[in-house]
This record gives sequence, structure tokens and C-alpha cells, in this order.
Amino acid sequence: MDIFMKAAIDEAKSGLCEGGIPIGSVLVKDGKIIGRGHNKRVQENNPIMHAEINCLYNAGRIGRYRETVLYSTLMPCYLCAGAVVQFGIKKVIVGESKTFAGAKAFMESHRVKIVDLNLDECKQLMKDFIQKNPELWNEDIGEL
Amino acid sequence: MDIFMKAAIDEAKSGLCEGGIPIGSVLVKDGKIIGRGHNKRVQENNPIMHAEINCLYNAGRIGRYRETVLYSTLMPCYLCAGAVVQFGIKKVIVGESKTFAGAKAFMESHRVKIVDLNLDECKQLMKDFIQKNPELWNEDIGEL
Repeated sequence: MDIFMKAAIDEAKSGLCEGGIPIGSVLVKDGKIIGRGHNKRVQENNPIMHAEINCLYNAGRIGRYRETVLYSTLMPCYLCAGAVVQFGIKKVIVGESKTFAGAKAFMESHRVKIVDLNLDECKQLMKDFIQKNPELWNEDIGEL
Repeated sequence: MDIFMKAAIDEAKSGLCEGGIPIGSVLVKDGKIIGRGHNKRVQENNPIMHAEINCLYNAGRIGRYRETVLYSTLMPCYLCAGAVVQFGIKKVIVGESKTFAGAKAFMESHRVKIVDLNLDECKQLMKDFIQKNPELWNEDIGEL
């Protein structure tokens, strides 16, 4: 598997170990990871720290994003897709979009290239988590 | 002036005093401010702490957003508009959209009601700031 998606999955698993929602993300530039993060809604009691937002937060003020690729274990929601479009990230690689269809069409309409790896490991992580924590998941996608 | 927009402008001014970008925001529910924030790109060296994101961060995990109104001194960009859409906020009141047209159409396409107060005070804050700090502003809107 792509080493960068592997790193995003490792982030998702770190989140799970902390009692959080298992979604992970890394930001890649010139073949190197320049930021990594995972969903911290539970850990930081914080509604905006989705995995991709946490990753961009951790990457810091890098200036231009045009040459970066954002990896996420799950298709980004509108919040995270909004960051992708506003920051000018041109490519997003996701682990899956079966659990959550997300804002794929919105990103594509802004000329962001989306690659969906449709990985069983990512789907299984979310399936197990949502089965045990349906309310947390509904809170995370704003469906309360 | 609307007391809530006044509070958002006070947030913007606090940001300016701290050496930051003067954009402020408050979240209102049942006639009360339940969160307030301002852009902290400079202060926290942080690319995702736009005013509205900082406001939602400070409001904490409130669960449902359907009955909330988000105030911002400036029309939200795609990042902040993405949060509005994903969280299910139904009304956004902005101080102005002359400095930055933002993601108004995107929010409206998701049935978010937008009210633009077109306030001179908000426009002047941004005009003065951008004149002195054009690079910071371009960084904030992802146009480097």
C-alpha cells in the first residue's frame, strides 16, 4: 500500500487508541510528509478538529499548498473540503467513501483531483467504530 | 447596530490589537452569544484559525447548530462556509463582502440564508489592514 495512506491509517489508529473517531490524514509535499493529524473531537472536546483540519493545523503556515497532496482515510466532509478548496490543494487521496460520501463533487467542481483507494481496512475501522458509537459519529457529521 | 455584529467587530479589533488579521465572529443561539472568536493566523501561527473557525472552536461541542446564527465581520471563505454547511448552521450575518466576496453562492446553494449588512466600519478595518499587510492577507485567502 501507498506509504502515505499507511501513515494516514496509522493516524486513524492512534485516534482510536485515544478513544477518538478513527479518521487520519497526512499532507505530502515533494514526496515527504509535512503534516499529520487525526480527528480530535473526543480527545480535545473540539468540534472543528476533523482529521484533515488537524493535519493542516499541524503542518503550520506553509504558505502555498499548490504542490501538496492531502491524504485522508475517509472522503472529506464540507468543512475539510472547504479547506482544500480555499487553501488551493489540487489533489486529495482518500482511503474510502463508502462510510461517508462527503464533498467529492464540490471539490471536483473546483478542479481538485480525487483518488478513492476504496480500502477494506479503512472501511472496517469506521464500521466497527460507528457500530459502537453511533451518536459520536452523527455528531461528527452534523446529523444530530 | 445589531449588538451581535458589534460583538463580532469587537473581536476583530481585539485581533488587530494582538497584531492579527481583523476579522471577528460570534455564534448566537436563543438571543445569546455562545461562542466568540477572531482570526489567529498570526497570533497562533496557525493557518486554520480563521475567525469563524475560532468562534466555532470556542463554542465547543454544542451538538445541534440548526438554531444558531453565525455572525462574521467578513463574508466567510470556503473553509468557514464549509463548516457552516457541514454543521448545519442555517443563517449567516456578515459585516461586509466588498473586501472579499467569499463563498456566498456555495452557502446559498445549501439553503443557508445570508444577510450582508455592508458596514463601512468593517470595510475600513480590512482596507487599512490590507494596505499595511498585503502578504498576510494573500496568505489568509490562499492566494500566494
